Amino acid sequence: MARPPRTDDLPIPRPDPRSGRLSRQVVEAIESGIRSGQLRVGQRLPAERKLATQLGVSRTTVTGAYQELEARGLLRGHVGRGTVVVGAPADSASAAFPWSQRASSSARQPWQLSLGTPAHRADVIRFDVGWTDGSLYPVTELNAILREIAADAALDLYRPPRPGGDPVLREAVSRWLHSRGTEVPPESILITTGGQQGLNVLARAFLEPGDVVVTESPTFIGALVAFRWAGADVIGVPVDHEGVPPDLLEETLIRHRPKLIYLMPTFQNPTGAVLGRERRRRILDLAMRHRVPVIESDLYGEIYFDEPPPPPLKALDGAGLVIYQGSFSKLAAPGLRVGWLAAPPGAWPPLAAAKAFADLHTPALTQRLAARFLESPRLEGHLATVRAECRRRRDHLVSALRRDIPRISFRIPSGGYYLWAQLPPALRTEDLVPAAAAHGVMVRPGPEMVPERGGEGHVRLCFAGFEPARLTEGVRRLAAAVEEASQRVNGARRETAPTVSVV
Amino acid sequence: MARPPRTDDLPIPRPDPRSGRLSRQVVEAIESGIRSGQLRVGQRLPAERKLATQLGVSRTTVTGAYQELEARGLLRGHVGRGTVVVGAPADSASAAFPWSQRASSSARQPWQLSLGTPAHRADVIRFDVGWTDGSLYPVTELNAILREIAADAALDLYRPPRPGGDPVLREAVSRWLHSRGTEVPPESILITTGGQQGLNVLARAFLEPGDVVVTESPTFIGALVAFRWAGADVIGVPVDHEGVPPDLLEETLIRHRPKLIYLMPTFQNPTGAVLGRERRRRILDLAMRHRVPVIESDLYGEIYFDEPPPPPLKALDGAGLVIYQGSFSKLAAPGLRVGWLAAPPGAWPPLAAAKAFADLHTPALTQRLAARFLESPRLEGHLATVRAECRRRRDHLVSALRRDIPRISFRIPSGGYYLWAQLPPALRTEDLVPAAAAHGVMVRPGPEMVPERGGEGHVRLCFAGFEPARLTEGVRRLAAAVEEASQRVNGARRETAPTVSVV
Repeated sequence: MARPPRTDDLPIPRPDPRSGRLSRQVVEAIESGIRSGQLRVGQRLPAERKLATQLGVSRTTVTGAYQELEARGLLRGHVGRGTVVVGAPADSASAAFPWSQRASSSARQPWQLSLGTPAHRADVIRFDVGWTDGSLYPVTELNAILREIAADAALDLYRPPRPGGDPVLREAVSRWLHSRGTEVPPESILITTGGQQGLNVLARAFLEPGDVVVTESPTFIGALVAFRWAGADVIGVPVDHEGVPPDLLEETLIRHRPKLIYLMPTFQNPTGAVLGRERRRRILDLAMRHRVPVIESDLYGEIYFDEPPPPPLKALDGAGLVIYQGSFSKLAAPGLRVGWLAAPPGAWPPLAAAKAFADLHTPALTQRLAARFLESPRLEGHLATVRAECRRRRDHLVSALRRDIPRISFRIPSGGYYLWAQLPPALRTEDLVPAAAAHGVMVRPGPEMVPERGGEGHVRLCFAGFEPARLTEGVRRLAAAVEEASQRVNGARRETAPTVSVV
Repeated sequence: MARPPRTDDLPIPRPDPRSGRLSRQVVEAIESGIRSGQLRVGQRLPAERKLATQLGVSRTTVTGAYQELEARGLLRGHVGRGTVVVGAPADSASAAFPWSQRASSSARQPWQLSLGTPAHRADVIRFDVGWTDGSLYPVTELNAILREIAADAALDLYRPPRPGGDPVLREAVSRWLHSRGTEVPPESILITTGGQQGLNVLARAFLEPGDVVVTESPTFIGALVAFRWAGADVIGVPVDHEGVPPDLLEETLIRHRPKLIYLMPTFQNPTGAVLGRERRRRILDLAMRHRVPVIESDLYGEIYFDEPPPPPLKALDGAGLVIYQGSFSKLAAPGLRVGWLAAPPGAWPPLAAAKAFADLHTPALTQRLAARFLESPRLEGHLATVRAECRRRRDHLVSALRRDIPRISFRIPSGGYYLWAQLPPALRTEDLVPAAAAHGVMVRPGPEMVPERGGEGHVRLCFAGFEPARLTEGVRRLAAAVEEASQRVNGARRETAPTVSVV
């Protein structure tokens, strides 16, 4: 290694005893020299004794400064070669590594971070985020269970991974599904760290780059991200009020030969659509005939406002073609982060492999809590409360929208968390969403949920997280934003109109 | 839809009242007809009244059978069109969907499932798995903390995601790193669901298919899987007893222009190597000069047997090029599933995006438990116990190997969980590993840990999970396997020797 050049006339001002600790001043002067470029990486500093003389301080002062800078990686001392600049302060623009430019294309999409991000100011009303508020979590019950678990806590809460999840929870999920009319043995249940991980595990287990996945259009944003991350192309089939039309689905299966079909048949996110019974059977027929497995997300099935929805596809799945996805986020509370996949036996091993390499296993503690909650006699009462309250919130949102923004149209959802709102003609999400944010209300733009193109005329509103007073206030703000954005759009149209007529 | 063909002469035997419930017998006969192919999907069954007459049973019996088969998705009734076969029983070979053939190539690799899989029979000694046993988890302390948390449990344990993790834990990790000489502010800490997820998050945040990652060779299997899953090519730099030689690393950087360098500088998995202080500085210089960020896994740094290891690369990272990875699996217990990434500020947003789409966030409950454990006054005592006991186990394994299998050679690791054993010349992992399994001891074959080719002459033994008596027994079994495999190899060589001499 070549001997680095020495800087004998170091541009360091003499420390002033009245300005604080001398060695601190030396540290800052050297830092500032590196930051400004007067000192470069590879450059050699004067020997301690020499610098001490130059600055009129004790050698100990210089030694202390060099040691601190060395500990922070800015300098390095070599016996016989002196002290060399080896790094720049973290805040140095010249040394700042362009991390954001190195991010993968998926991690750079700005909208990704908005999922699950809580309000950045308390005053913003976040209709864009799909959670209920804490008043609807079964906190008393969960706390009681947690106290029970803690009272007889033992080694098994801290043990290493059990493939597929805690056997107690797998049993509990199997019994729960049975109570809902779906037969899946415990050994076919795979526990995941929440529903979103379930989608990633599915993608990891079955998708290769270039594979096609067919989904409803619009669809759940987390599913889109999971499939795209695996390199798949996502093709959407437009849903109507009864979900995916089987004829359209069949055309798509024939044309695109997908690897998987992903559906949320009950209270679909974002449209709230419920796939009709007849369509459920026809879609299973199609899956069987075309030999394409179906991923069925059933996250909202228990949040019904009128009668219970039709049985899940999984309950009708004689051919072992359906992987069913559930989660505790809507049954209990999102902070638990426990979900499950109920798979045909043949699908279990690749799913378990993908799960193991995602995070080895889901924590034992949250699995135990979830298992006991699922078997709690208070679960049904809790669900009844959530249904009643979400229904009340839906009713309130519907009334407020009709009263304050009659130009927005929608179907009234009969379950779930969401209302899929069609904007007045001419108004597009790119106009409305920023205006709404400026008025202190956030809504989720349709294009984020549409696999290919489209959705500019829709936004998704989550009503489940707000007391009526907040819903009223949120709609009031949204109304102001619709008004303002419409005027701006109309103004822009008037301005451009003459030009258009000339052309 | 065309009218499906009707089967008037259904091959159903007349039920026998002495053989159990009549409708059950009808169900089974129809199932068996579908399974055998006599009844095909799309075929129409006789009207209920007609079949009842044919079989000599009441119409109610047939109605009940049709209803059950309908509920299970095998039949479907249409008003005016009769009852049609729509599916096959789940156990029907003709309908079994070839799930395993549809698995992604990554999920199909059989060795992946072995990570973290506990013994499939109690008697097997699993030197292949990287965990301590429960006697080394701080169960008393964790239980005490859990009881405290449960006693004042509240809503915030169940809330939805907080980006980046629980602020209390992020503070605690920042203070912990500070106590170890590494300065990372809480806002640069990202909490992950264990260390393995941290690697996936890193891969997701920064890698695109075709990118190159440079690692030590051999390296941690979970890192290999994470990077390959993201589509990256992994290039290994052979380690010696002081870790990666900087000159070799530099050649690799120049030749392959990697996106990331992944290193475990302290008690490397699997070799136990500790990167020397001087090499640490030189490698940071290289990273800076070549503008390649470094991922530093530091999972075993606290498990030292002699003096504490050199400070992590992150402590010397003036230029913000190092992302540091830690976990509670080795500090506390693997079942917690809490880890962290300590990132330069610019690297945080893509990491947080990738984390959000992996599983939204890590459970609040396990984060709280981890935070309190990290700040517990008993943590240092616990770590001292773990160090002493792992050292005792290492010593015992070393003695047993020297006594029972002197033909195996190795360097004595000065920390961590693993011993990297070089097999006798001529003996390869493909010979030894199955023989060892047959003798009831499992070891991890070297090739799984080598990024490109090689490793056939090495196995990894984890000593941290076993009391001396089990270590003795495991080595005894391994010795028998080495003996047997060597004899088989020598026998094969003698058999093939004449052929070789002719050629």
